[in-house]
Amino acid sequence: MEPVPPVSLWPDPNALGPVTDLYQLTMMAGYRAVGMDGVEASFEVFVRRLPPGRSYLVFAGLEQAVGDLLNLRFSAEQVEGLRAFPAFSGMPSAFFEGLASLRFGGDFWAIPEGTVVFPGETLARVTAPLAQAQWVETFLLASLSYTTLVASKAARIVTAARGRTLLEFGARRGHGPQAGLLAARAAYLAGFHGTSHVEAARRLGIPASGTMAHSWIQSFPTEEEAFEAYARTFPGSTTLLIDTYDTLEGARKAALVRPHVQAVRLDSGDLDALSRGVRGILDGAGRPDIRIVASGDLDEFQIDRLLAAGAPIDAFGVGTELITSRDAPALSMVYKLVESGGHGRIKLSPGKKTYPMAKQVFRRRDADGLYSGDLVARADEQHDGEPLLSPLILGGRLAAPLPTMEQIRDRCARQLAALPPRLRRLDGPADYPIAYSDILERDARALMEQGA
Amino acid sequence: MEPVPPVSLWPDPNALGPVTDLYQLTMMAGYRAVGMDGVEASFEVFVRRLPPGRSYLVFAGLEQAVGDLLNLRFSAEQVEGLRAFPAFSGMPSAFFEGLASLRFGGDFWAIPEGTVVFPGETLARVTAPLAQAQWVETFLLASLSYTTLVASKAARIVTAARGRTLLEFGARRGHGPQAGLLAARAAYLAGFHGTSHVEAARRLGIPASGTMAHSWIQSFPTEEEAFEAYARTFPGSTTLLIDTYDTLEGARKAALVRPHVQAVRLDSGDLDALSRGVRGILDGAGRPDIRIVASGDLDEFQIDRLLAAGAPIDAFGVGTELITSRDAPALSMVYKLVESGGHGRIKLSPGKKTYPMAKQVFRRRDADGLYSGDLVARADEQHDGEPLLSPLILGGRLAAPLPTMEQIRDRCARQLAALPPRLRRLDGPADYPIAYSDILERDARALMEQGA
Repeated sequence: MEPVPPVSLWPDPNALGPVTDLYQLTMMAGYRAVGMDGVEASFEVFVRRLPPGRSYLVFAGLEQAVGDLLNLRFSAEQVEGLRAFPAFSGMPSAFFEGLASLRFGGDFWAIPEGTVVFPGETLARVTAPLAQAQWVETFLLASLSYTTLVASKAARIVTAARGRTLLEFGARRGHGPQAGLLAARAAYLAGFHGTSHVEAARRLGIPASGTMAHSWIQSFPTEEEAFEAYARTFPGSTTLLIDTYDTLEGARKAALVRPHVQAVRLDSGDLDALSRGVRGILDGAGRPDIRIVASGDLDEFQIDRLLAAGAPIDAFGVGTELITSRDAPALSMVYKLVESGGHGRIKLSPGKKTYPMAKQVFRRRDADGLYSGDLVARADEQHDGEPLLSPLILGGRLAAPLPTMEQIRDRCARQLAALPPRLRRLDGPADYPIAYSDILERDARALMEQGA
Repeated sequence: MEPVPPVSLWPDPNALGPVTDLYQLTMMAGYRAVGMDGVEASFEVFVRRLPPGRSYLVFAGLEQAVGDLLNLRFSAEQVEGLRAFPAFSGMPSAFFEGLASLRFGGDFWAIPEGTVVFPGETLARVTAPLAQAQWVETFLLASLSYTTLVASKAARIVTAARGRTLLEFGARRGHGPQAGLLAARAAYLAGFHGTSHVEAARRLGIPASGTMAHSWIQSFPTEEEAFEAYARTFPGSTTLLIDTYDTLEGARKAALVRPHVQAVRLDSGDLDALSRGVRGILDGAGRPDIRIVASGDLDEFQIDRLLAAGAPIDAFGVGTELITSRDAPALSMVYKLVESGGHGRIKLSPGKKTYPMAKQVFRRRDADGLYSGDLVARADEQHDGEPLLSPLILGGRLAAPLPTMEQIRDRCARQLAALPPRLRRLDGPADYPIAYSDILERDARALMEQGA
């Protein structure tokens, strides 16, 4: 008899209902018990503060967030499982029947993916019956905050790379196997040129990139044989990993390989010195056409230093630092009630000030076309500047086609180009002006004086 | 007409074949082209170094890794997609047909989940035809390294908490929505007592825990009404969040709520001072039975400081710091070729020394029963001590039932109890002796002298 198979730790994309915190469900039960579950409420997503040293974020994650909102439900098996939870021991049967038929039927507005955004401004808004709006918080934040972290880190690496080719190589260091797919997409929309993640490339049309591992080299009796076997298999698109034994020796061998190779990759050691040595060897062998790819725990600061020093590197593979957003692996992204039953709501906890009511963000430009500041206003106000939020889901249905990857990538490039140069510097942070409309300030003050 | 739905970013658990790096597939194609794809090879998983300040790791992630290995395949649609990749433009049709029928048919050995482990020792081993062994690297590392990071962080928090109740609250800060499920499991096996993640609780039998968000309080005209509505819905299991407006005032109200509440939760401010103030108010109101739960960006150091200072906190909710392993969001876990075609293999790159051949790890104890050191030896050697690796998959089939969550949790508790006290200190690192057998040292030297 075959032993019992392992428990799957893959959420079912068609039954993401319980991919949430228990308190969302206990509150849903509570609202139902007091007859408030149908009260219309708006919750807004925003970031409290930038990670240390950062001056901006690139907002991302909507493809997953919207897909999951449209598809959200509990399976019959999940509802049965919830009946056995001690927390729900006293719940009437109608509560569980309600879960079985629950769907997201509300509205979802957001700033487009690839937009440069700042703390304190509304990035997305859910308007729905209170129970539904509560339900979606957990997975919405997980999708948006992680993808935003990676896109934001990727944008800094793009700045550092001064136009060099950038390849996302992080899948093995992701926080679980799903993170690789999300990170490949986030990196590409922020300006990377390719990914090693095969499924991300296939689903999203991102150019796939990859060479060989050290194990390839080690599997052959000699490095030359390993190089030649690879070049014969992939004539015209061969990148050889040359650091398994001795990098400079590897470069000498690579220059002689037939069929001709297109690139060599360095994955260890002093990349500045080695890239110069390798470049000299390749040029001396009459192969100035062979490109040099560098990888190995690189981040924006190392890439900046290498290129500022003049290291002759044509492309960078970036993995761990990007996919884990290593210097800032968490983002203070929150989802806060701003309106319910037609009344503005705010939070008074110290250091956690919020503004009431559904909002819009207006972005202004200076005479040179650079962004000069954002105004956060009530959604029903009219102001100068580009309004950033638009509806993606209305009444539970997709309201407009989502942009393609290439459209998002173009938008992001234009957004980054319109950032004031002080904000694009790697040695941040630099401030960007965010203001709140007089009406918002007045509404917030009035609520504070009421004590809620 | 409904717009085109979003692209799913959920990998298909029944078609994880391309959830891997492109170079795994190009190497597979290359090995096939030179007739080496069937050569039997062994790759071993190990960690190069501990994260800063750490003295040990808790190995975890096998439930997902084994499940995925058993289930690994390409769908017909995926194989069609790969035909269009430029990297595969010259590949013969037989390559794609081979992918369509590919399964993992090899062996997988590992140290059990919940075991305390150290850098440089073999944690898991894949033995399979070269092409298959290469294929599985990427997702295996993503599953094992992330889950090990979280279990290792959780074990430190368990130490800091001195027996207090620990609840995993991190889902919203995970790197994508799958991370929540993986992290809830990792935290529980390392000694946490519950999770807020509903689906993790349902699938894995972890106690589910949760209270209410600030939005619950804000949705009622007064805090008292919010408290009472919740207590009536969940009589006998009510935890009230008391920091929305004024924590001490919240405590006074909580003591008076009917039906009686069981706990209050503080989520902001000076937790030491507030917990003392709240304890005094509750005791003064004749409610010494009400427990105090604290949360809000807590890690092992803050919990240690709070309890060392005598803060009267009964339970901690831990989110961001745990699920992102914030101080160490990446682990230098690698997967290296150690043997192919019956020959030992090593890597010579500077700072990346490896030992050849399939290995076993023997753990020794001192006279007090505490771990005194590990010996890494060739798998065919006999030594004193407990051998840690055992087979989980043989010939592509599950070789033994996987342990239950409770068995892993028990193992982990016993492992941590057998650690020398210097290793359990939070202000590490402390060293643990890892030795290599004479035979391994001799084999490695012989290969180094051959230059490979």
